[in-house]
Amino acid sequence: MGRPQMAGMVHVFTGEGKGKTSAALGIALRAAGHGFRTHITFFMKGEYPYGEQKTIALLPNISVARFGSLEFVDPANVKPEEKEQARLALENARIAVQTGRFDLVILDEVNVAAAWKLIDVKDVIRFIKERPENVELILTGRYADKDVIALADYVTEMKEIKHPYKKGIPSRKGIDY
Amino acid sequence: MGRPQMAGMVHVFTGEGKGKTSAALGIALRAAGHGFRTHITFFMKGEYPYGEQKTIALLPNISVARFGSLEFVDPANVKPEEKEQARLALENARIAVQTGRFDLVILDEVNVAAAWKLIDVKDVIRFIKERPENVELILTGRYADKDVIALADYVTEMKEIKHPYKKGIPSRKGIDY
Repeated sequence: MGRPQMAGMVHVFTGEGKGKTSAALGIALRAAGHGFRTHITFFMKGEYPYGEQKTIALLPNISVARFGSLEFVDPANVKPEEKEQARLALENARIAVQTGRFDLVILDEVNVAAAWKLIDVKDVIRFIKERPENVELILTGRYADKDVIALADYVTEMKEIKHPYKKGIPSRKGIDY
Repeated sequence: MGRPQMAGMVHVFTGEGKGKTSAALGIALRAAGHGFRTHITFFMKGEYPYGEQKTIALLPNISVARFGSLEFVDPANVKPEEKEQARLALENARIAVQTGRFDLVILDEVNVAAAWKLIDVKDVIRFIKERPENVELILTGRYADKDVIALADYVTEMKEIKHPYKKGIPSRKGIDY
């Protein structure tokens, strides 16, 4: 028998709109329902009490590792510790794919980490190319690099058509984080 | 005290790309982590063993109701029982919002049900307008009606940039359903 195998495809959720991280989490939920095992590496979520992380901890077949500082990163002034956290995050994802224990590995906000040069996009490309067969990857975040897009099988752009931020409504607990 | 309240906004996830239902489920996961209660009405999922539905059943604060037949709907030849199922689904969502027990109600694939005339879009509009304050709604599915979009606060289009269907790869368990 053994567990079912994934085809090892690469997904990218990018764009300015809502739902990139949520879509990745929803797929983890779906995969878990079929007995697949998922590891999620959060690149830039820090210790912020994101609601989904609490709930994910209740689910079987899903493990989570969080990296990044408490503060939001200023792309014009990236700190050495932010680069170090991003490097550790990519290393964490690499270990996850290499253990053979996971069918699906999610690199949440990795696209932003690369765009803001917290990590070198070449390291992300190498990570994708060197992963074992059958490990499915999801990479989320705005500003997905063209070379990452070229390597991906599924690329979805979340396009913002309407958003209440534009009416001055701030981000809301339970919905936006 | 009491539980936190939502602002009662309306979200639409539409477009041809991946991640519409997944994004809604991910938000339910996030909301549950903050103690909000979510009800999900699946309009066109039938008895199909979608992975996410099994996992959702494990989560506190999330309840699920499924409608629709086993077969995929042919929009050119809608059957009376398909219309009846869609009517029951909308009724289920209406009861959910009226009980006051839920902070977030998700109407999954309701946009398709309306576009294919399983239900009248006017009934969806009325449902949105008549919901109690503080009940947040998420409506998913391709072909969101322009009047639904006009009423919504958040509208995100999932835009397909790349998809392996185009290379002839069929839909896959754990990822696509």
